[in-house]
Amino acid sequence: MRAPLIDCLQYANWSPEIFRQMRAGGVDAVHVTVAYHETFSEMVGNLVKWNRWFELFPDLIVKGRTARDIDLAQNTNRTAIFFGLQNPGPIRADIGLVEICHELGIRFMQLTYNMQSLLGSGCFEETDSGLTQFGRQVVGEMNRIGMVVDLSHAGIQTIRDIIDCSGRPVALTHANPEWWHPARRNVSDDVLRALAGRGGMIGFSLYPHHLKDGSDCRLESFCDMVAEAASRYGSDRLGIGSDLCQDQPDSVVEWMRTGRWSKQLQFGEGSRERPGFPHMPSWFKDNRDFGHIRAGLLKTGFSTVEVDGIMGANWARFFAEGFEPEAGS
Amino acid sequence: MRAPLIDCLQYANWSPEIFRQMRAGGVDAVHVTVAYHETFSEMVGNLVKWNRWFELFPDLIVKGRTARDIDLAQNTNRTAIFFGLQNPGPIRADIGLVEICHELGIRFMQLTYNMQSLLGSGCFEETDSGLTQFGRQVVGEMNRIGMVVDLSHAGIQTIRDIIDCSGRPVALTHANPEWWHPARRNVSDDVLRALAGRGGMIGFSLYPHHLKDGSDCRLESFCDMVAEAASRYGSDRLGIGSDLCQDQPDSVVEWMRTGRWSKQLQFGEGSRERPGFPHMPSWFKDNRDFGHIRAGLLKTGFSTVEVDGIMGANWARFFAEGFEPEAGS
Repeated sequence: MRAPLIDCLQYANWSPEIFRQMRAGGVDAVHVTVAYHETFSEMVGNLVKWNRWFELFPDLIVKGRTARDIDLAQNTNRTAIFFGLQNPGPIRADIGLVEICHELGIRFMQLTYNMQSLLGSGCFEETDSGLTQFGRQVVGEMNRIGMVVDLSHAGIQTIRDIIDCSGRPVALTHANPEWWHPARRNVSDDVLRALAGRGGMIGFSLYPHHLKDGSDCRLESFCDMVAEAASRYGSDRLGIGSDLCQDQPDSVVEWMRTGRWSKQLQFGEGSRERPGFPHMPSWFKDNRDFGHIRAGLLKTGFSTVEVDGIMGANWARFFAEGFEPEAGS
Repeated sequence: MRAPLIDCLQYANWSPEIFRQMRAGGVDAVHVTVAYHETFSEMVGNLVKWNRWFELFPDLIVKGRTARDIDLAQNTNRTAIFFGLQNPGPIRADIGLVEICHELGIRFMQLTYNMQSLLGSGCFEETDSGLTQFGRQVVGEMNRIGMVVDLSHAGIQTIRDIIDCSGRPVALTHANPEWWHPARRNVSDDVLRALAGRGGMIGFSLYPHHLKDGSDCRLESFCDMVAEAASRYGSDRLGIGSDLCQDQPDSVVEWMRTGRWSKQLQFGEGSRERPGFPHMPSWFKDNRDFGHIRAGLLKTGFSTVEVDGIMGANWARFFAEGFEPEAGS
């Protein structure tokens, strides 16, 4: 069987057309966001929508619960959909809701989304106070039940604390190295080394605000960055987390940034002059474009096995390690 | 392996002591109620409590999701706990929440609890208008995903409608035949014949209000009733659903009867003079007493295979048929 193609973060305006593009692009598994600022009940409403899509399009998509569902998807020409939360709001202050979310299929959770949460600090807070008492308890619970801590959008001290505190490998599903493109959401070299050294994964983002030269970023530049990251962190620690927000209206990026926490519009990585979604780079517009990245990586001198790893096999291995309960629990 | 011992309805005031009694009594699986009048959120809170018990007492209990978990429980000397709702309140008017509940482990749902619900009429309503439009949709959805419709506490027309409408066998998990003891909650012969004729199951209740002579019911009388039921409906359609409410204060039966739907205390099957839980019969006080029923059934002339069936093997077969999604869904 060919190596799987996995994208470890998307938040599209889902439609049968996009599901068909995933098939056309040979995407075997995607980690999709099911909540930003939603309450628990609103998150459940989003899961209900997904269940309806699974029922209506059983020939295109299948719900992903374990890494074996990637194989199932490959064997049946479908895309396995794995759920994640970009914000821990749905668990409120209730550690018991972590396992409830796992039972509902949530396999990734960010402890923060840009802002302070009950668990830790986000990358847009002025002061990052690191993991809270509750945050430490939740990391332990996620370790126990097999839910992966996603470092994306966290502040740097919070990220450091999570890497130190977690008994199982964690993931930065969608961000890039700061040394390639300095941005609030990109992460410093020492932290990426610590993450990889503990068995963690880095998913490279294709969201223009995370790219050198933004929407004009060249494929060669991106692939050279991946090659440099491989030399620093090991190619087996790398994957893709495109952060593709296909077909979304700008109201969605407003929701991501402002939620219900402010009456003033927030601009996050954007600005008052450019408040909307930036244009994707010409070589990655949708799920049919992963072949460009594969070709670009091969050109940099990676072996086929290394490229297979970066394009999905590394995530598949990580999903297999990360989604099962701890032995004895 | 010996035949499993299964009780298809309990609502105890759960404690490690009761879990140990289940082990002492050799109970391999129990269907437990996780909501009467609870909202969806309150039901989730009850599931959180169960998850905590599974974590704290992994040597005594294990969460049941499929019939294979009965084997797992037997092989590891534990009791498998299967969840059910006695009231469809948690799904509100949202058909999508049926599958969400299934994902959380709910395997049985009553469409009504004594009163009118959005799905049908309960056995204490003066007028039973049968399955509603929404009720028919929900039966179809339960059929699709593998959640068993529980007829207990429904009105007789609603029960008839469910048996007619359901594409898969349904169950009356805890009630007795009206011909043995006329009571609002017991069910008429023609309906029990129709239920069994469609592959359904009858779980005999040991709750005194459902028993001939109430708390003074003799074991022989109960077992003779089972023998008569076997001759009418087939012994393979029969099981136990004790309705054991062990260690519960009377405030719990008040909650069952009154919920939040009335400011006046309701008495249900009790009365103003005897508002509390009735005493259990001397031969069935807790989970250690199933041996008395087994011995009593053997005395009536049932074969060992038939008694094995009634004491659990029939439920095990029914769980295996009932808890999987429909082919193709």
